[in-house]
Amino acid sequence: MPQRIALLGSTGSIGTQTLDVISRFPGEFKVEVLTAGNNIRLLAQQAAKFLPDSVVIGNSIHYHQLKEAVRDIPVKVYAGDDAIEQVVRGSTIDMVVAAMVGYSGLKPTISAIRAGKKIALANKETLVVAGEIIKKLVKESGSKIIPVDSEHSAIFQCLAGESGNPIEKITLTASGGPFLNFTEEMLKTVKPHEALKHPNWEMGNKVTVDSASLMNKGLEVIEARWLFDLTPEQIKVIIHPQSIIHSLVHFADGSVKAQLGLPDMRVPILYALSYPDRYSSDLPKLDLSLYPALNFTEPDPSRFRNLALAYHALRQGGNMPCIMNAANEVAVSAFLSGKIGFLQMSDVVEFVMEKTEYFASPGLGFLETSNTRARTIAQNYINELCKKS
Amino acid sequence: MPQRIALLGSTGSIGTQTLDVISRFPGEFKVEVLTAGNNIRLLAQQAAKFLPDSVVIGNSIHYHQLKEAVRDIPVKVYAGDDAIEQVVRGSTIDMVVAAMVGYSGLKPTISAIRAGKKIALANKETLVVAGEIIKKLVKESGSKIIPVDSEHSAIFQCLAGESGNPIEKITLTASGGPFLNFTEEMLKTVKPHEALKHPNWEMGNKVTVDSASLMNKGLEVIEARWLFDLTPEQIKVIIHPQSIIHSLVHFADGSVKAQLGLPDMRVPILYALSYPDRYSSDLPKLDLSLYPALNFTEPDPSRFRNLALAYHALRQGGNMPCIMNAANEVAVSAFLSGKIGFLQMSDVVEFVMEKTEYFASPGLGFLETSNTRARTIAQNYINELCKKS
Repeated sequence: MPQRIALLGSTGSIGTQTLDVISRFPGEFKVEVLTAGNNIRLLAQQAAKFLPDSVVIGNSIHYHQLKEAVRDIPVKVYAGDDAIEQVVRGSTIDMVVAAMVGYSGLKPTISAIRAGKKIALANKETLVVAGEIIKKLVKESGSKIIPVDSEHSAIFQCLAGESGNPIEKITLTASGGPFLNFTEEMLKTVKPHEALKHPNWEMGNKVTVDSASLMNKGLEVIEARWLFDLTPEQIKVIIHPQSIIHSLVHFADGSVKAQLGLPDMRVPILYALSYPDRYSSDLPKLDLSLYPALNFTEPDPSRFRNLALAYHALRQGGNMPCIMNAANEVAVSAFLSGKIGFLQMSDVVEFVMEKTEYFASPGLGFLETSNTRARTIAQNYINELCKKS
Repeated sequence: MPQRIALLGSTGSIGTQTLDVISRFPGEFKVEVLTAGNNIRLLAQQAAKFLPDSVVIGNSIHYHQLKEAVRDIPVKVYAGDDAIEQVVRGSTIDMVVAAMVGYSGLKPTISAIRAGKKIALANKETLVVAGEIIKKLVKESGSKIIPVDSEHSAIFQCLAGESGNPIEKITLTASGGPFLNFTEEMLKTVKPHEALKHPNWEMGNKVTVDSASLMNKGLEVIEARWLFDLTPEQIKVIIHPQSIIHSLVHFADGSVKAQLGLPDMRVPILYALSYPDRYSSDLPKLDLSLYPALNFTEPDPSRFRNLALAYHALRQGGNMPCIMNAANEVAVSAFLSGKIGFLQMSDVVEFVMEKTEYFASPGLGFLETSNTRARTIAQNYINELCKKS
């Protein structure tokens, strides 16, 4: 029987690539639910192609338009965030692919975890914001999280068959993004369209900017801490501009395992869907002889402060990663709309981390408050920065 | 209870490194048997340190001298190849480390397999010469082979937790040896002491010369075919001068797994001994930031003909790999004693492969005959070459 899938964020970068993967294995997967935030047109097209049981549009104002767009398709139509949280619990769902971007992915993912579903997790903010809570919920419900992020998928794959074996550390690789070799002076004046040109990966705008600022790697460090139960000291980052080695596990016996591949998100997506099996696919394959050199350097903390901020947030714990993430989401948005410069994003994050009330053991409700509060502080600070310039 | 080990070839490079590893985990391993070919002095020293139940010297003429050397140690002393074959079957042996060099490792390894022992296999000639027979014997006896060669250990480690998952191919890495960038003209005149300077690995003389001539990689291709049940077309070789990535498995879903580490045989030896567990060790660890570039190139078949000869032998099957191995052992010996040049080793191997009687389904007896016959033909051909020059 095919695995029945709810895909949250189906119109985004991971969402569309997930559907590409699913379409290659019609006998293995069945799309039950598709959800999107605002992109009615693409959601309707996807519904026509994959004939899910339900579609949900997060932003309720689009409900009637979506209903109209799928009127010839036998599909149930819902709207609103509550509807998303409900459909993922449905008894016909085996696996939930959490591919929404940012903080908004948290609630539906928690809903799916509570229902004991298998989760293919592409929304890294879920673990960044509420890692400790999520781990507890997973344990209680018998849910299982399979990471989709290429780095975490790499670690997860390297840990197959290694249950109980001692780990010295892991190394997450980072491409370094388009500004790897830019001086601080150059970084001050880079434009959004430059930040959106990632050298290796095709990703959504938010993740691509985070990649250029290394905040993406910072979020991944925090995510890895919860996924693999490691201390901050056990998680290293190395710059690897070719994005071929996706990450490495250093076992305590001196042996290191790595997962490699072309920078193509469909490979880790397929693995998350097929795990613990692998399916033969016709996705493009890595030919090592086309990569005469794979390079590695230490990240430069003076030019890319976000990485240090993320380790700081991880070590502090509590609501600090939530605060950092909220500030960063606002900062990225302000950078993309031309309000602040590239390096000012770190200024915003650092300021908000200092100014927002810290709490060591927050529940979900307090995290929600911290998220809102941090966003307000970030927005006010950005407005001040704009006035000054 | 500690794992009780018989170590065949304890005075060689793998043997001494195995004892180094064992000495780091006194609670986990107990040396029951040590065997050596001729090195009485070191064997006696090892007996004094590890207090095995028995020691065996392969060359019987050394029996009395060995007996005298260990007279103060409570250890049984045996001599001769038959004695080695007998002690590995002992009921107090859990695991046999087959670290003898060359064809001579075949018989005692077969004896241990027949007795259903777990085998840590460092003697690659066993599978090169008699892969098909060995596979059958392992199946019948319930023995298990765990590879020690760094490349095969890498593949074996990458396959942990991947049972049944489809493999596209594997890639064995080769350092390329000390003559990687030598022209054909330069290769004609290289001296034995130059061939014995491996850039990365510390190994015995035979393996080091094989490494320089790429015959070692050819033998490994054949070994991999039997260890991992692959077709010749599924086994690739790539030159990787740093010897950090020890080999790679390309799964059919587009994902590639690799095992990495410093070029230190003690890591794969430890893994073979501790498998399926891993033990925390204080062996030197890989620091990727010290390797700013890992390089990869295709091997050049015009300068290194042995690799093509090995693929040819593998495709022919039958007794051809046995013939190739025998010719190579004689050729390496002739090169080391200054009788023939570096490139003439391939001439010898090619000639002997053409001139020795081919048989498609040889039993062990016929392989023994082929081995002897090939050595004679090789020796005669070398004598002729010497006369000419």
